[in-house]
Amino acid sequence: MFEPPVQRLIDELARLPGVGQKSAQRIAFHLLNVEEADAIRLADAISDMRSSVKLCSRCFNVTADEECSICMDVRRDTSIVCVVERAQDIPVLERTQSFRGRYHVLGGAVSPIAGIHEEQLRIKELVARVEAEKIVEVIAATNPTLEGDTTAMVVARRLKPLGVKVSRLASGLPVGGDLDYADEVTLGRALSGRMEL
Amino acid sequence: MFEPPVQRLIDELARLPGVGQKSAQRIAFHLLNVEEADAIRLADAISDMRSSVKLCSRCFNVTADEECSICMDVRRDTSIVCVVERAQDIPVLERTQSFRGRYHVLGGAVSPIAGIHEEQLRIKELVARVEAEKIVEVIAATNPTLEGDTTAMVVARRLKPLGVKVSRLASGLPVGGDLDYADEVTLGRALSGRMEL
Repeated sequence: MFEPPVQRLIDELARLPGVGQKSAQRIAFHLLNVEEADAIRLADAISDMRSSVKLCSRCFNVTADEECSICMDVRRDTSIVCVVERAQDIPVLERTQSFRGRYHVLGGAVSPIAGIHEEQLRIKELVARVEAEKIVEVIAATNPTLEGDTTAMVVARRLKPLGVKVSRLASGLPVGGDLDYADEVTLGRALSGRMEL
Repeated sequence: MFEPPVQRLIDELARLPGVGQKSAQRIAFHLLNVEEADAIRLADAISDMRSSVKLCSRCFNVTADEECSICMDVRRDTSIVCVVERAQDIPVLERTQSFRGRYHVLGGAVSPIAGIHEEQLRIKELVARVEAEKIVEVIAATNPTLEGDTTAMVVARRLKPLGVKVSRLASGLPVGGDLDYADEVTLGRALSGRMEL
């Protein structure tokens, strides 16, 4: 119905999470009406991010370098590791200012329904780090959902034999919720009240 | 808080209509996690649209050519013109299959609050078309809002002296609504029940 280049952009936009057909149209026409430089800046931001951002070789956080800024920060406590499902959970935890260790990004949570099994998560990389980096405590900061809880149990089962302390974020987070939407205070409390598994 | 290339993309996404900070983060990380080709396709769709799409020299609809596909369609009735605020309103009207004339895109509506005066709209281009193209009827299909009604009145006042019939979309559209969200049946009824101003 729209001119082909406009329709193609609408189709691409409609693939994004939380963007329906109507929002995609609005955004496409917005991008058609703004200054060309503004539209191109968005296009460049997408390609720049894809070309410059990679995963930290240690913790799999996003980074522009070989290791991420947290892993390279010499002031961080290297004996404690906070395990998260996704890289975007790290800034949420950082904002609490309640954690000074390093992170480990699993790349998701165990979910038989979605076909995600523990072999697809970066659990063996975590085991290797615990063995190599003199880590004494691992905090499972997975989401307070069925999948997140299962993943925390899997992590605990794999790490306990190595003699490392494994804890889970305290309840206080609303059950069934999403870590990404937690406020700093609740999340800070959950961090300090974490309980050993 | 995020790596600079990621933060830059989040900032650009958050400028889009209907996209908040949180949605921008979700979309940015989605674009980080999908296949690189998928992300680049979106970036290319934005720049392609900006480089290939221009405005029809006759009606100011979006087009990849000198004139849009509607103006170039020889089967359309060239004696009747439907005046719309924005180019994205044209496909909505086309879907009703109730109109076989041509269009004219004003580029907005008169709004003293937003500082948009009639001189900034393409009204003199419309007057020139009515004089040059043997147009006998102009339908003001502006939004059923205060701004849209005002714009329709302005169009009528400027065209009446030329002896052209000027009509307005029939009420039936919910007052205060947005033409872009009307369903085909309501909009089709509004078209056939249009009243002379």
